[in-house]
Amino acid sequence: MDPLLTDLADLAVGLGANVQPGQIVAVGTQTGNDELVHAVAESAYRRGARFVDVSVFDPHVKRARIEHAPAETLDFVPSWYGERMLALGEQRCARISLANPPPPGLFDGLDPERLGRDQLPWLKEINTLINDATGNWTIVPSPRTEWAGLAYPELDSREAMERLRRELEHVCRLDEDDPVAAWRERAETLVTTAERLSARRFDALRFEGPGTDLTVGLLPSSRWHAARFETVEGIVHMPNLPTEEIFTTPDPGRTQGVVTSTKPLVLSDGSLVRGLVVEFEGGRATRIDADEGAALLRARCRTDEGASQLGEVALVDREGRIGRLGTVFYSTLLDENAASHIAFGNGFDIAVDEADRPRRNQSAIHIDFMIGGDEVDVTGITRADERVPVLRGGAWQV
Amino acid sequence: MDPLLTDLADLAVGLGANVQPGQIVAVGTQTGNDELVHAVAESAYRRGARFVDVSVFDPHVKRARIEHAPAETLDFVPSWYGERMLALGEQRCARISLANPPPPGLFDGLDPERLGRDQLPWLKEINTLINDATGNWTIVPSPRTEWAGLAYPELDSREAMERLRRELEHVCRLDEDDPVAAWRERAETLVTTAERLSARRFDALRFEGPGTDLTVGLLPSSRWHAARFETVEGIVHMPNLPTEEIFTTPDPGRTQGVVTSTKPLVLSDGSLVRGLVVEFEGGRATRIDADEGAALLRARCRTDEGASQLGEVALVDREGRIGRLGTVFYSTLLDENAASHIAFGNGFDIAVDEADRPRRNQSAIHIDFMIGGDEVDVTGITRADERVPVLRGGAWQV
Repeated sequence: MDPLLTDLADLAVGLGANVQPGQIVAVGTQTGNDELVHAVAESAYRRGARFVDVSVFDPHVKRARIEHAPAETLDFVPSWYGERMLALGEQRCARISLANPPPPGLFDGLDPERLGRDQLPWLKEINTLINDATGNWTIVPSPRTEWAGLAYPELDSREAMERLRRELEHVCRLDEDDPVAAWRERAETLVTTAERLSARRFDALRFEGPGTDLTVGLLPSSRWHAARFETVEGIVHMPNLPTEEIFTTPDPGRTQGVVTSTKPLVLSDGSLVRGLVVEFEGGRATRIDADEGAALLRARCRTDEGASQLGEVALVDREGRIGRLGTVFYSTLLDENAASHIAFGNGFDIAVDEADRPRRNQSAIHIDFMIGGDEVDVTGITRADERVPVLRGGAWQV
Repeated sequence: MDPLLTDLADLAVGLGANVQPGQIVAVGTQTGNDELVHAVAESAYRRGARFVDVSVFDPHVKRARIEHAPAETLDFVPSWYGERMLALGEQRCARISLANPPPPGLFDGLDPERLGRDQLPWLKEINTLINDATGNWTIVPSPRTEWAGLAYPELDSREAMERLRRELEHVCRLDEDDPVAAWRERAETLVTTAERLSARRFDALRFEGPGTDLTVGLLPSSRWHAARFETVEGIVHMPNLPTEEIFTTPDPGRTQGVVTSTKPLVLSDGSLVRGLVVEFEGGRATRIDADEGAALLRARCRTDEGASQLGEVALVDREGRIGRLGTVFYSTLLDENAASHIAFGNGFDIAVDEADRPRRNQSAIHIDFMIGGDEVDVTGITRADERVPVLRGGAWQV
């Protein structure tokens, strides 16, 4: 078996999800990742998993649906999809997702309104599980040829795949002698920075850079999180591998100004939004423009009441391994860890106190887009209206 | 798209499952059938399906489980597997399964006891759905290279695949100008023969041939069925395409004698039982011998109380298209339609009156094996102990 895949599998099972003996392990993937699925199953069973339940999403079937199904059925989800998700939480299962972009071009030429109505494989019940912390979960990348072609269009197919494999190995710290130790150290740095940031209790953050002057209000109890999560049962896991971000849930009613994305945004169906500019007023996106794909994002932001407001704000410094590569991976898992970002849609209960939970943003969607970089200054604004530098030239000031 | 696959898909959706506008269509397959899955999804959505829910079973993940999971967990099935099945029935969904053998050799070398404890992808709830007739369903074959290599080991890989495609096209009657009309005609013949057989109300059937002298007692109301089923909502569908058999549920307590299989038996995990000889006493298999794989079948027959008794007896004449080819397909869907057969395990409520339902065999398994052929005579025994020829030289006598 391919050693990169067994390494990725062991990292996902051992460190990422931290699978416990006797647990059911739900593996989520799109079609085409069979080899990594097998490696994950093998690793999980070796670790004493009770059952490995693989759920395979087929983007070609989604394409057939968007093309041919009656419009009024496009947001339909069979009852057992959400029921399975909730059962995964109730039964304290581990969850491992494999991430890579859908087949390039697969959703081209489809009506964005129709495409936007079908949120699958995303399920609203996933938010419940994350917020309830009822499961230990992780997302890891799964290398494949089509993805390599997307990320490195200038290389031939073999070279592109080699580079993707090398870069994934690097950003997943699998090129370290002891990847688990390397991740524990990086996680410690991220977590302590998050704690320092939380201690400041900023009222808002301001992003200033080329085409960007955006203020994101925070909730009174907005706490910064990073790298490590803990389930209600006390299982420590790392939801994203790789991970370089420090994030919280903002006040959905106090985003103001204009922001220009610093990297292309790839929607869950693989469609692309380039050169995105969003204007916010009173928390809500009042203008969404882009060089490419604006209509797709506008359709997503009409999904529900909270879809045009923010559920997340996240900071990434330049010490992370992803941003340094300069690669656009066309995969949120990687790209969101390359740069500071904000997300339309659902927020996280875990990032605020009980009292603020009803105020965090609620939505069926969660779409991250990158707004940070060395050229974007991030400044904290205190309740007393003081300005405190947070990131300058990509380096922490707190 | 491959025209054979679109033809198979249209046959499955249109004639086999007879998908109705607004229905959810559950597609069941093992990994590796993506292209036919896409064709089925496209065909179903074009016909007005509300949703196509593809469930992919990965035999490699099963192999990892059998190898590494604790023995006491091997019969565990997550709660949502059965719940989804029952929901498919309650919500009157259509179901389409794609059939082909698991990757050759995948389960070689595993402990048969451990292998026998894991019945997946089979679920006991499937029996409930079939008996309740709550869904319109079908199984169709899905051609692939590994399968071709198994069925025609004497041919090179390209020739083998060509022959498999040609033979599947032929047995599925896709080489007819109007395959649907051809199937309607064949179904009519099978159904009227079944009706004539039912009218005889035999007390038992006797199979006599080389190595075989077996009497299978029937229940007072055992009725013969073939080709066409009807759901509780009145949707007519064809559960197997191809289909050539006429079958009923026997009295599980009155199988007596010895039977020698006339074709290899392939278990659901792809393992092979060759040269099978079974002795029955008072309905129960008291001896299971074979040139190869006896232990695998013995393990299956220990699953539960009904696993060593019969749930089905089926007759196939020599007019069918499968038997004539002389190919061993290593797939129950095809091989069981080549020859008369019996099945260990669960019986069918639909084949008996209400009063006899508690008497039909109950089990979590259903394993067909071929016992018929031109050289095996089948004789009906009336309640008055008269002998009535049923099949002679593979030709109907009734």
